[in-house]
Amino acid sequence: MAAIFVRMKGAKENENQQIKATLTRYVKRYIPIDEDVINSLLESSVLLRVQKKDFLLKPGQQCTQQYFVLSGCFRSYYIDEKGQEQVMNFAIENWWMTDYISYVNEVPSTLYFQALEDAELMAIEKEKLETLFDQHPRIERLFRLIAEKSYIASQRRIEFMLSMSRQQSYEHFESSTYPFSERIPQYMIASYLGFTPEFLSMIRSRKRKGKS
Amino acid sequence: MAAIFVRMKGAKENENQQIKATLTRYVKRYIPIDEDVINSLLESSVLLRVQKKDFLLKPGQQCTQQYFVLSGCFRSYYIDEKGQEQVMNFAIENWWMTDYISYVNEVPSTLYFQALEDAELMAIEKEKLETLFDQHPRIERLFRLIAEKSYIASQRRIEFMLSMSRQQSYEHFESSTYPFSERIPQYMIASYLGFTPEFLSMIRSRKRKGKS
Repeated sequence: MAAIFVRMKGAKENENQQIKATLTRYVKRYIPIDEDVINSLLESSVLLRVQKKDFLLKPGQQCTQQYFVLSGCFRSYYIDEKGQEQVMNFAIENWWMTDYISYVNEVPSTLYFQALEDAELMAIEKEKLETLFDQHPRIERLFRLIAEKSYIASQRRIEFMLSMSRQQSYEHFESSTYPFSERIPQYMIASYLGFTPEFLSMIRSRKRKGKS
Repeated sequence: MAAIFVRMKGAKENENQQIKATLTRYVKRYIPIDEDVINSLLESSVLLRVQKKDFLLKPGQQCTQQYFVLSGCFRSYYIDEKGQEQVMNFAIENWWMTDYISYVNEVPSTLYFQALEDAELMAIEKEKLETLFDQHPRIERLFRLIAEKSYIASQRRIEFMLSMSRQQSYEHFESSTYPFSERIPQYMIASYLGFTPEFLSMIRSRKRKGKS
């Protein structure tokens, strides 16, 4: 069968080749690779470019897309009862990002999705993805496995929140599990870990003293 | 097509009819109902009966099954660094229960699964379930949707842990979201919510005084 040239909306030819290679490497981690699967995902997606500080999603909007981060770094957060930002998650290259609550239940989001760096993403509409699930059970398998991995990551985070001291959870975040901690402002890490910026500064200064 | 009579291993005829009805009601919430799907799930499962305090899983064992709770109530917990029990989750009727970390990654579990009441479960081996996914894409869809719902529940729990005061999280647990809180000993609820039994007693006594 002749190879079909498929290009994602918004991508130039050379970009498209790079994105295809990235996506192929990613999908391979979950399911046996299949040209059809990659082409179908590309065809159904749109390339988005966003600038640092731009918002992909805001409270009140419905999240109708899944995003695959090609480059850059994002955070999701909400404003709590006291009017303070509470970071829920981060996302970097090769991560899918969605407000599942809004996406699955088709309700308005309570989250902000904000770029922390200039970024590129693949965006795929729920409706198109569901058509792909019908056409390619392998794509549905991919997303089942991604949902399971996301659930596992959440369960681990709950375990850490329940068991670790604040010092331990900070050290864990700085470890290899989160290779992107240097790309994120301190106060956002503090928020993600559930403690005050003052506490984070204290730990960091204690650490610096220990090292010197 | 003539109806096929399918019976789950370990189930008597009248039990089997009841289980089939329960499972059908459950599956209907996620995907259009299909006799084949229900029969295949029943055929691939085994009925387990466990007594209060029995363990389904212990640390060091690999979790190779997914369990669907037909009756009874369970908790999963682990022993933390200080030697104390830390409750991770509860499960009641119509909930699936699995140690996904052990099941997906095929590593020994760190969890105990313990029955808090006499209970009945449908158990399905990973290998059999994966065969079903190949045979019936609808069953894979069901489990994708279940994984997404589980992820959503975890994200909500993280949000509550980050934002709610201990008083609020206790009140939330006692609300309709958790219709089973009366079936669970106080100290386990305290552990699940991440606070000490002493703190729970304090809240409860404050509440009683408020009511009287």
